[in-house]
Amino acid sequence: MAHPFLVGLVGDGVGPSLTPPMHMAEARAQGLDYVYRTIDLPTLGLGPADVGEVLAWARRLGYDALNVTHPCKQAVLPHLDEVDPRAAALGAVNTVVLRDGRAVGHNTDVTGFATGFATGLPDAATDEVVQLGAGGAGSAVADALLGLGVGHLVVVDVDPGRAGVLAHDLSDRYPGARVEAAEPAKLSALLPDTDGLVHCTPTGMAAHPGLPLDADLLHARLWVADIVYRPLDTALLLAARANGCRVLDGGHMAVHQAVDAFRLITGTEPDPVRMLDHFRSLADSERSPRGENR
Amino acid sequence: MAHPFLVGLVGDGVGPSLTPPMHMAEARAQGLDYVYRTIDLPTLGLGPADVGEVLAWARRLGYDALNVTHPCKQAVLPHLDEVDPRAAALGAVNTVVLRDGRAVGHNTDVTGFATGFATGLPDAATDEVVQLGAGGAGSAVADALLGLGVGHLVVVDVDPGRAGVLAHDLSDRYPGARVEAAEPAKLSALLPDTDGLVHCTPTGMAAHPGLPLDADLLHARLWVADIVYRPLDTALLLAARANGCRVLDGGHMAVHQAVDAFRLITGTEPDPVRMLDHFRSLADSERSPRGENR
Repeated sequence: MAHPFLVGLVGDGVGPSLTPPMHMAEARAQGLDYVYRTIDLPTLGLGPADVGEVLAWARRLGYDALNVTHPCKQAVLPHLDEVDPRAAALGAVNTVVLRDGRAVGHNTDVTGFATGFATGLPDAATDEVVQLGAGGAGSAVADALLGLGVGHLVVVDVDPGRAGVLAHDLSDRYPGARVEAAEPAKLSALLPDTDGLVHCTPTGMAAHPGLPLDADLLHARLWVADIVYRPLDTALLLAARANGCRVLDGGHMAVHQAVDAFRLITGTEPDPVRMLDHFRSLADSERSPRGENR
Repeated sequence: MAHPFLVGLVGDGVGPSLTPPMHMAEARAQGLDYVYRTIDLPTLGLGPADVGEVLAWARRLGYDALNVTHPCKQAVLPHLDEVDPRAAALGAVNTVVLRDGRAVGHNTDVTGFATGFATGLPDAATDEVVQLGAGGAGSAVADALLGLGVGHLVVVDVDPGRAGVLAHDLSDRYPGARVEAAEPAKLSALLPDTDGLVHCTPTGMAAHPGLPLDADLLHARLWVADIVYRPLDTALLLAARANGCRVLDGGHMAVHQAVDAFRLITGTEPDPVRMLDHFRSLADSERSPRGENR
């Protein structure tokens, strides 16, 4: 009998995540036994400082891997035996593979956004890109954008300090690119000359409805990528489509981070199209949005 | 999608247990996702005093149930929210179901032996029974025998004190039966008038080869039940068969404890014949015995 897999998702508010059913459905299609559990820290009375103990017990109790999400992607680092170079450079891990007695960290948010972008917006111009949001998800997405060859990236955040730190860090790591920080008030000046807009703030989620910027700035030459996936059709994407923009919804990143994690965990190749179809059917079946991205 | 089950076996030397594959094969036949892990305490540098922490983390990490074996069947008791009356009377738990925030203990060694005996040796006379071995397994088996209506049970152990304590305890709990302790030297006097012999010591396992008593005492009117299942054909059962005795091998108890645990854990009815067949194919495929019963 093939090895039966045991995987968990650790973080805050992970209960309604679609990642567990995505992994389990793909495993089932491949004939693999695969149990994927959510480990919701607040429900357990635990916090990010406990992630080391969660990891230690997951190893003892036979887990093959953990996906790690907010607020543990940095906190888990000191508890790993090894971190892949991309995740180490970013300082954030979302996938820990437990194998042969070792805990190895990866970041499939980065690879997942990159693959989702390359397959979902092929041939998109990437000379000039504006990114909204410099938090944890934004850091991973910016890393992916620069890895994809974006020439000039402007990071916009309501917290200018946070945007500045991220821009500085990215400039160090991608010396061939130009990375700058800007305040939201600059968007009206920036966007007319921009090829693409990437949205990495919580605005548009069920709990944070609305638009993250003035819809009139969405000109038809712009492509718009959102990483919010609940709902898939955010107010931003609806407005962008209405204005004639090409769009990429948050499902692509959500699915491809799972595709890449599944491959790392199982050593077998998942079917991205099947996983995307399944994700869309799960997302469609959610009668009312349940709140947070995972 | 049906609930995917996560179950573990906690104890010493549980690595080669056949219980995990038995559960997983039955679940697979029923179309259930079911991962069953071994949690081997010595491998983890843990001991029976740690079983409470193992249980607490198993709950946090999404386990549905634990099977518990030597040396934790008593140690786990103070960590449970509820214990079923039979397991409580025996003071030993081998199955902990984690559901609705509660940990409930059961003992399917008792029910498993009882069902295995009733189905494997139907119509066996049970007026006079001798049991060899008064350890943990022996306690559960004696409980099952008295529950099945054995009228006179003689418990024989190389440690007369242990046999005496068990006999005393059983007399209290089964006032309608006669329960006595005896030393091994009494076997030659006891067995001629006995209907059945139940063997509950490690003798006959690969690590403890040989016979637990003089084969000449195995007269043809005697039925002989062994709980050792590695190998299924112990030296005792081979000698008993050669002397014309009806025999019951240890596979029956091993399978029926798993049948009963599976039912408690999943709430669905397992197929005992399918599980017994699978167990025998697993046992047959073990080229050389790997040592211990679970």
